[in-house]
Amino acid sequence: MRALSTADLNPAILKVEYAVRGELAIKAEEYRKRLALGGEHGLPFDKIISSNIGNPQQKGLDQPPITFMRQGSDSDQVAALCEWPALAELAPNAFPKDVVARAKELHEEIGSVGAYSHSQGVPLIRQSVAKFIEERDGYPANPDHIFLTAGASAGVSLLISMLITPPDSGILIPIPQYPLYTATLAQHHGVPLPYHLDEASGWSTSLHEIEQTLEHPDHAEIKPKALVIINPGNPTGALLDEETQEKLVRLCEKHNLVLLADEVYQANLHRPDEHPFVSFKQVVARMKSPIPLVSFHSISKGVSGECGRRGGYFETVNFPDDILALIYKMVSVGLCPPLSGQIGVDCVVRPPKPGDESYPLWKQETDTIHAALASRTKTMSDRLNALPGISCVNSPGALYLYPKVHLSDRAIEAARAVGKEPDAFYAMNLLDETGICVVPGSGFGQKEGHWHYRLTCLCPGVDDYVDALEQFHRRFIAKYGAAEE
Amino acid sequence: MRALSTADLNPAILKVEYAVRGELAIKAEEYRKRLALGGEHGLPFDKIISSNIGNPQQKGLDQPPITFMRQGSDSDQVAALCEWPALAELAPNAFPKDVVARAKELHEEIGSVGAYSHSQGVPLIRQSVAKFIEERDGYPANPDHIFLTAGASAGVSLLISMLITPPDSGILIPIPQYPLYTATLAQHHGVPLPYHLDEASGWSTSLHEIEQTLEHPDHAEIKPKALVIINPGNPTGALLDEETQEKLVRLCEKHNLVLLADEVYQANLHRPDEHPFVSFKQVVARMKSPIPLVSFHSISKGVSGECGRRGGYFETVNFPDDILALIYKMVSVGLCPPLSGQIGVDCVVRPPKPGDESYPLWKQETDTIHAALASRTKTMSDRLNALPGISCVNSPGALYLYPKVHLSDRAIEAARAVGKEPDAFYAMNLLDETGICVVPGSGFGQKEGHWHYRLTCLCPGVDDYVDALEQFHRRFIAKYGAAEE
Repeated sequence: MRALSTADLNPAILKVEYAVRGELAIKAEEYRKRLALGGEHGLPFDKIISSNIGNPQQKGLDQPPITFMRQGSDSDQVAALCEWPALAELAPNAFPKDVVARAKELHEEIGSVGAYSHSQGVPLIRQSVAKFIEERDGYPANPDHIFLTAGASAGVSLLISMLITPPDSGILIPIPQYPLYTATLAQHHGVPLPYHLDEASGWSTSLHEIEQTLEHPDHAEIKPKALVIINPGNPTGALLDEETQEKLVRLCEKHNLVLLADEVYQANLHRPDEHPFVSFKQVVARMKSPIPLVSFHSISKGVSGECGRRGGYFETVNFPDDILALIYKMVSVGLCPPLSGQIGVDCVVRPPKPGDESYPLWKQETDTIHAALASRTKTMSDRLNALPGISCVNSPGALYLYPKVHLSDRAIEAARAVGKEPDAFYAMNLLDETGICVVPGSGFGQKEGHWHYRLTCLCPGVDDYVDALEQFHRRFIAKYGAAEE
Repeated sequence: MRALSTADLNPAILKVEYAVRGELAIKAEEYRKRLALGGEHGLPFDKIISSNIGNPQQKGLDQPPITFMRQGSDSDQVAALCEWPALAELAPNAFPKDVVARAKELHEEIGSVGAYSHSQGVPLIRQSVAKFIEERDGYPANPDHIFLTAGASAGVSLLISMLITPPDSGILIPIPQYPLYTATLAQHHGVPLPYHLDEASGWSTSLHEIEQTLEHPDHAEIKPKALVIINPGNPTGALLDEETQEKLVRLCEKHNLVLLADEVYQANLHRPDEHPFVSFKQVVARMKSPIPLVSFHSISKGVSGECGRRGGYFETVNFPDDILALIYKMVSVGLCPPLSGQIGVDCVVRPPKPGDESYPLWKQETDTIHAALASRTKTMSDRLNALPGISCVNSPGALYLYPKVHLSDRAIEAARAVGKEPDAFYAMNLLDETGICVVPGSGFGQKEGHWHYRLTCLCPGVDDYVDALEQFHRRFIAKYGAAEE
């Protein structure tokens, strides 16, 4: 028989690109293995720092899990407490009262975490989510319009797969964007309709840009189905102002677009007085707009950073019941979201309140994480901006910086000579020399001739870390020359 | 603006069908809510028994979690033990030594379960899977060819999405089948190429049937990409003999087919001496066949029944590296499988060994579950077979029975009159009168004019349960008459 080859596969699969865990991340993994072997590794660094992915609890980073999450969200600890009374008797003081109560409440609703739950998510937890949304926005939320998911990605992928009718459906996506969107569109034969964010004004979103994309002759045959907004931005960290949000809602009304609001970084605000987060749900409700809205949230970001549990949710607004029934049918094929992720959602949307035994520690831990993230983000952007040939927007939100690197013609030629995008070449050299893994801007999209990279603000020991970035950049410029500004 | 309607969606989504959680399951959920309210519910039963889905740990069933799983697999307990030494000190005797050692080993490899893992799954756990496969089959397995997944369904869906090139790719599926296959094919614009299993010979698989399907003029324009085999069968519980397995491998060689082997019930064997399980990996390795094989396994079935953790794996055989790289790329878009599921996989493939402190309890618990399942399956099939108008293959494996119901013309007319398939009509009446939720055969596929339903063998109190099935069936026949045999 013939051996299986890529020619036997769906060509759409070949088109999928996801740089966050692409070539550089794979090479970083190889370096990590080499270092783990110990002995003479012949590398100019002794550890890998994965700044390519917002993974707060990864080894070597300085963000510990929130104690309340781990106590309250520990489904199996609940099981342990219920199944082995001996344990509770032996360790009566190991858990705060509110944690034991929460665990008991969840266990009574869920039963065994080894059982499938309702495909849409445990009803009690969807009620907690609805209450969280109501308190956040001041408008009602319906648990039956909320779907718990295995992280936000699973929800985004599902909604895009449902909205795309090959071959002529398009979805408006920001550039730069989180590559989940282009990857999912490629997989489902959808057409990305890119609109550029404005770096000069802190990566702001321009209605004019979006209208231009819609009117572009290249898109004449494409039916636009949805508008993707990432707020706070990824990779940009930008936050939308309410006036722009209202205009975007009107634009969706005008063009019959579903608004896909990726709001997973809503709790990662570094300067909330200056740049607050306002949910699209609140804006749509206040405007009484009829636009179909899907808001995605996750337990992987914020201060919980519980990535490995795979938990999140999406809320649908202005979706008719027959489409909700179709979404239910689609999620039921996958049976249910992971229970440990669902329980994580309950803890994120129902944190301890003042007066609860675990509140003081929770408050202290979360304040510490917020403060550390804000100060690291400022330190990193200040120091990167001070470097020749680098300009960096000081992100008001999310977990990332997206510095622009001005590369010389020599650097660009050197990159092309080895068949790489110039920013990928820069990032590959950074990894090879420092062990720091970032994601080249070409993985998120950028204007012709502009070069960026995305790095997380989750590094350990920020000073040594930025020292390494600086020293590398100066060496790179010494070798390839500075770009003409 | 226009309101969103199903006409705006991908028509493929409308075609997806998944009866396991379909109309009946949704109605059962409504009954469950009504019963939960307490008071006068006006229903002729006081509890819902969900026999529609193999969910061993669901409330009200009699299969508890395996203690070792819950101790050893309790990722957060590991975290608890590591993060709060106080707990370990306070409860030094709560965990067997081998459990503590396993938890420690996993925690040292994984770090926080709140962190993303390698997208393919934690390397140490993939090594455990490879070792399990080698010990099961006597042939080598490569951890780099193993992908951990969020249950087997996620892996099946991924492989089908990669193999299908719309619009003319087909995949051979057994009839009856687990509807994940038709649902995934519908979603990805693939063509199901159905081949019938032979009920008269215990749902055996016929090479002739498969060849006939391939040669069928209706399929002349369709490129067959893969052959799906479910062994042990779902819903049939049938086991393949090795001679048939070898012939199936040759058939895949002859027609250049990828063999998708759904082997999630490999540990659910009721008469292993008479009907043992042999993996396709072993058969392919022994035959030195070049066919591309994917074997799917899950922690949701077997004796662990850890459905809610969402854990499983697939092993690829004879896949070239560039395709493995594409699979990696696709799973990396979803970031990683749930850590609690991955840890569950480690416990399923690395159970306690004789001499380990937790072995005796593990042995006793698993023996009890195997024995209970085998005896319930026999009791249920014997008593169903004794009923007029029902014939039922006594499944040698899996978790289900798939009885055939002979329905009278009056029953069929009554069903059509309310716009239902006759077997769905029978099942809806069963639910309405007894609270027992099963899945109509039309959800799995069956020969024209044949009617079946699938029920799990996980019921509590088998005698009362079968009493209810019997009494309902007799009432149904009294009302609609017996079918002419």
